[in-house]
Amino acid sequence: MTFSVAGFRFAGCAAGIKKAGGLDLGLIVADQPVVAAGVFTRNLVRAAPVDVSIERLRLGRARAVLANSGNANACTGAEGMAATLASTQAAAGLLGLEATQVLPASTGVIGSVLPAAKLEAALPGLVERLSADGAEEFAKAICTTDRWHKIAHGTLKTAGGPPASVLGIVKGAGMIHPDLGPAPTATQGSGPLHATMLAFFVTDAKVERSALQSALERAVELSFNACSVDGDTSTNDTVLALASGLAGPANEAALFEGLLPVCRELAKQMVLDGEGAQHAVEIRVEGLADDAAARTVAKAVATSLLVKTALFGKDANWGRLLAAAGRAGVAFDPGAASVSIAGSRIFDKGKPLGAAAEAVATRGMTEPSYGIVMTLGNGPGSFTYLTCDLGHGYVDVNAGYRS
Amino acid sequence: MTFSVAGFRFAGCAAGIKKAGGLDLGLIVADQPVVAAGVFTRNLVRAAPVDVSIERLRLGRARAVLANSGNANACTGAEGMAATLASTQAAAGLLGLEATQVLPASTGVIGSVLPAAKLEAALPGLVERLSADGAEEFAKAICTTDRWHKIAHGTLKTAGGPPASVLGIVKGAGMIHPDLGPAPTATQGSGPLHATMLAFFVTDAKVERSALQSALERAVELSFNACSVDGDTSTNDTVLALASGLAGPANEAALFEGLLPVCRELAKQMVLDGEGAQHAVEIRVEGLADDAAARTVAKAVATSLLVKTALFGKDANWGRLLAAAGRAGVAFDPGAASVSIAGSRIFDKGKPLGAAAEAVATRGMTEPSYGIVMTLGNGPGSFTYLTCDLGHGYVDVNAGYRS
Repeated sequence: MTFSVAGFRFAGCAAGIKKAGGLDLGLIVADQPVVAAGVFTRNLVRAAPVDVSIERLRLGRARAVLANSGNANACTGAEGMAATLASTQAAAGLLGLEATQVLPASTGVIGSVLPAAKLEAALPGLVERLSADGAEEFAKAICTTDRWHKIAHGTLKTAGGPPASVLGIVKGAGMIHPDLGPAPTATQGSGPLHATMLAFFVTDAKVERSALQSALERAVELSFNACSVDGDTSTNDTVLALASGLAGPANEAALFEGLLPVCRELAKQMVLDGEGAQHAVEIRVEGLADDAAARTVAKAVATSLLVKTALFGKDANWGRLLAAAGRAGVAFDPGAASVSIAGSRIFDKGKPLGAAAEAVATRGMTEPSYGIVMTLGNGPGSFTYLTCDLGHGYVDVNAGYRS
Repeated sequence: MTFSVAGFRFAGCAAGIKKAGGLDLGLIVADQPVVAAGVFTRNLVRAAPVDVSIERLRLGRARAVLANSGNANACTGAEGMAATLASTQAAAGLLGLEATQVLPASTGVIGSVLPAAKLEAALPGLVERLSADGAEEFAKAICTTDRWHKIAHGTLKTAGGPPASVLGIVKGAGMIHPDLGPAPTATQGSGPLHATMLAFFVTDAKVERSALQSALERAVELSFNACSVDGDTSTNDTVLALASGLAGPANEAALFEGLLPVCRELAKQMVLDGEGAQHAVEIRVEGLADDAAARTVAKAVATSLLVKTALFGKDANWGRLLAAAGRAGVAFDPGAASVSIAGSRIFDKGKPLGAAAEAVATRGMTEPSYGIVMTLGNGPGSFTYLTCDLGHGYVDVNAGYRS
């Protein structure tokens, strides 16, 4: 299957950045300067490419994305910054652009300086490979511990014309618990935040920059910012959106409606690919005073280690679900709470429904994807948080990542 | 080794509460009514014995503690409450006390009603076993997934006399991340909180109730509330302190100074016994504006899954340490940060010191217990948080706990 969006070309190649070899350098090039928006990790410790992309996005337009796996170029100081600047300068030179039109993104091991010479050596071949249907190759080039590359596409309503296209590409498997925001302000680092996630969206819709930025932020809030693999956060989280304007005009509402399902599909793929995970589980909390309260509880449940190991063990353990909800700092009456797993009610208005009900739920927990619903009251607030099980695979991947 | 404190007798027995058998019911009895204080889980979802002990502690004095393992009696509604009341009533009857003088505590599986009939059948034999040197038997009776029972003892300065004794007994291995506070108020559930931890302290010092309560809270804050196995919180966390007054008088300062090392020793044993853990690791954060900021950062690092799996893998991964610190919401300059593991500096003022330094640190990470120091600035604030590695053992214990 190939995907293309008018105005964009893609490529991926093996630049020798990954010790084990394989595709590790990707390039997206727009035929003309395009409208660009982005959200980034709120981690106080930001990698050099994040700082550079934040700065360059202030121009509002861009021509290219240069993304690599195998090296995050984080905690690498002035030397790392120089490597990021040199590699984007090299790409710009080959493409006949200004360096400021090239947005960098990196993922991989923290603490090693990006090997700019390797990137520069690979760039001529990479530029030659650019093609309208190279998105899959690009998607593969940005993978690290991902078990598969992740692409989703959708459409955007335009004013009076045929729908525009939107193509999304994401990488991410561990250190996944995004909390992305726009370019950092004085409040940077004031929120929790998490993930090594790189995501790129291209659309041919004609959009205002502010509409694209706002729609992207809103869609991310309900997708990437509402999913968690391990509750940890990356120094490198980056989401970029580029709009070529070759199709009809789309306003913020259309952008949001078009981006959201693509973001959600990618978030689900990412969680399903959670390091060692076998199940993507939607934690839905409802019946609280407002959505913010429901989000707080859903997040506490979705990030609980005891919940996640119970999911791994296919244990319909409503006790751990309620205990995790109870420490979220949101008031509810445990005696009125109900819990369903995979469509089977196992705890009803404060009372366990017993082994037979749990056995049905346990069967549902063998599915790759299922939902848990916790009804904690009669209020209108609800929120759905995406999580995964945590088992031996996660330990294997993360205990020896650098070795 | 035996431990005794004037005025107290202890016992433990097998009441058949645990499916697998073994000691599961413990009793502490004071010869006379004694001064009593306590702190409890701040989880909104509290087990019946927690509610009962909170209520009975309002009297300020107690005569006995009845503690069981194998069943937490949490999320068990009115039936669970009746079982807790019945079993303490039975103990009181045998001991010639009021039921309100018996403080209950339970730990084990959530969601099954405490089998009060089993407790009642075992109680006569348990009472017969009471002896001044029965603390070890009691300590064994409250263990669940603990690999060993945990006792520590110390002394308390008294006014003008010989030191008084303090004996502490704790159980806890998983669901450990205590956040204990005094009896819940309107703000209950407003903090994070974590742990299935039961701890009991007895002293023969003569104390005021308010001094004992205050000293206990302060000592817990710097020990149990500053350690984490899995960041999860129990419905049952309970810490009780009883003072017989048979030795000399101790004021709050003396109580705090005497309790703190005992609490810390027990916290360390608990973390070292973290489910599947092989290393107890002190995360010390220093150089921030104040201790509260340092605590926030230390906690973020101590509870990071990526950090804990790196500890398991003996990976001197300063990148994960800094990334976890960076998401704590506390401002610091990563370019001025330094990190040492097991006494070996591996990251100095923003720069990694390379493979040789990391190799030395890695050797230190094979020790059962070591420290990590993160210096994040020049400020006076510091805090030490105790954590452990997380590996396959944790997954094994928690994926199949109920089966």
